[in-house]
Amino acid sequence: MRVTTLAGGIGGARFIRGLKAHLAASGQESHITVIGNTGDDIWVHGLRVCPDLDTVMYTLGDGIDTERGWGRRDETFHAKEELQAYGVEPTWFGLGDRDIGTHLVRTASLNAGYPLSDVTRALCARWKPGVELLPMTNDRAETHVIVDSPDVPGNRVAMHFQEWWIKYRASLPAHDFVFIGIENATPAPGVLEAIAEADVIVLPPSNPIVSIGTILAVPGITDALSQTDAPIVGISPIISGAPVRGMADACLTARGIETTALAVGLNYGARNSGGILDGWLVDTSDADAESDLEAAGIGCRAVPLFMTDVPATAAMAEHAIDLAQALRSAG
Amino acid sequence: MRVTTLAGGIGGARFIRGLKAHLAASGQESHITVIGNTGDDIWVHGLRVCPDLDTVMYTLGDGIDTERGWGRRDETFHAKEELQAYGVEPTWFGLGDRDIGTHLVRTASLNAGYPLSDVTRALCARWKPGVELLPMTNDRAETHVIVDSPDVPGNRVAMHFQEWWIKYRASLPAHDFVFIGIENATPAPGVLEAIAEADVIVLPPSNPIVSIGTILAVPGITDALSQTDAPIVGISPIISGAPVRGMADACLTARGIETTALAVGLNYGARNSGGILDGWLVDTSDADAESDLEAAGIGCRAVPLFMTDVPATAAMAEHAIDLAQALRSAG
Repeated sequence: MRVTTLAGGIGGARFIRGLKAHLAASGQESHITVIGNTGDDIWVHGLRVCPDLDTVMYTLGDGIDTERGWGRRDETFHAKEELQAYGVEPTWFGLGDRDIGTHLVRTASLNAGYPLSDVTRALCARWKPGVELLPMTNDRAETHVIVDSPDVPGNRVAMHFQEWWIKYRASLPAHDFVFIGIENATPAPGVLEAIAEADVIVLPPSNPIVSIGTILAVPGITDALSQTDAPIVGISPIISGAPVRGMADACLTARGIETTALAVGLNYGARNSGGILDGWLVDTSDADAESDLEAAGIGCRAVPLFMTDVPATAAMAEHAIDLAQALRSAG
Repeated sequence: MRVTTLAGGIGGARFIRGLKAHLAASGQESHITVIGNTGDDIWVHGLRVCPDLDTVMYTLGDGIDTERGWGRRDETFHAKEELQAYGVEPTWFGLGDRDIGTHLVRTASLNAGYPLSDVTRALCARWKPGVELLPMTNDRAETHVIVDSPDVPGNRVAMHFQEWWIKYRASLPAHDFVFIGIENATPAPGVLEAIAEADVIVLPPSNPIVSIGTILAVPGITDALSQTDAPIVGISPIISGAPVRGMADACLTARGIETTALAVGLNYGARNSGGILDGWLVDTSDADAESDLEAAGIGCRAVPLFMTDVPATAAMAEHAIDLAQALRSAG
């Protein structure tokens, strides 16, 4: 079975770890392709950092700090301390020493002219994540947040997503998100093929605006999703009206979307009416959303959605695959 | 008193620490300028590393690992471990995590277009080394070593000095040293002025070929030394026929110079016969070299030259300053 997923950082990576476990336990031959969000990528101190790709790579390659959810296990932050002592900005970015090893290899390779997809493959040759990890695009397309300037009252400014997310903990009300440069971005090699040739496409419980939403904004990707023969099933990142982790509510609010499993599902929309979803998993606590989703043309199941451990997550993945196959048979 | 010194890495840095202590104890107002060797500088993993400038800066700024003599105190090598795990070369370069903080600031500043002398001043604003630290040049001029290829028998190759020094521990016989690019290098701003306006110029016990020799090879610097009114006194890095530390013997041999305090002094030569030395300190164990040096026109004193601690080094510096002043009165 060929499964293609779109993924942001921690939520996506953890879900895919469960998906891997489920497919491995099922005994059938399978291939997972992960199309990773690169809108959060940032240059810091001359290093190209790809937070979401690295979170997927480290999580699936067993190098992640599982407590923190991002960055490397047994990490130190000595270079960061030094940068701070020199008084250079940004001081808020969590640049770990082991992590810097990855960024140095990536930056040198990019500066040598290799595209990000090749560089990502080279990094994965070490980590062996057990999936094919593709950046959504090799082009630069950065997520910025439109906010009232924290420095100059009355000024509205665009701020890099990472600054808003990490430095301000998403506490500055967002007027909107803009994906700078995305209109000229093209999907990285393999991305459209992975969508066209998949047996199942799964949207993990990643942030619908700044993770999945960014990927969908790369010209060609939403079209490919609307045209693929594969059923597309998403997992709600919202449970009982709140994001399981992260600050997706701040992102949804900016786009005028309620922080509910129902509203997020409807926002993606049903494929038979111009959206991208065939199916949508909501948590059992959100079972009352089922009827509205089904009425909108989205197959829905209410199942436990807390990724408490790998078995619980594998069970979620199994529900997603089951729903996809049921919808394919029905369709 | 304005004292100008030329310096390589560990030996130069330790001597200047003693010089600082002596001048501070003497109570007179003084200003030390250090013209640092940049021939050892190297790009590793996209970072611009200046080993000699950093050794001076860290040593005088009290950030050095005193046991090792180079790099930062309380250092870790996690990024280096990762680079090794990725299989990227060079693996032999001692890139510490704290040190990387310095290299990131330097590299970003150089890439932004600032000259190395400005960048060095900015880094020193944090370390407060108590001296004015100038790179010998802002231009790229790299020391390479001509050796028989360790890989292809019969091939003679040029190898970056750091590779020869660190990876091969100077064990590959050197045919010669070439300072690539130096013929087009110009002294960094302030270098010629520091030589012209000094009251005393001191050559610390640095490597005469690949530290002091490189600085002397920058067009204009040797001329400035031959013309300055300041007396120039050097300290022998060779004691009893062996380098105190490092592998200066391998460098001297390549140039056909005996590893003796006498031969190194004579190689610098007396100013009154086209060289650069007015005075030369040799260790008490090399006192028998005095008459030959004096005969060649170089004022000589035999004093203890082991830099066992700061007071012993301060005493050496005091001897150097005393000899310089005696030679100025005599001249």
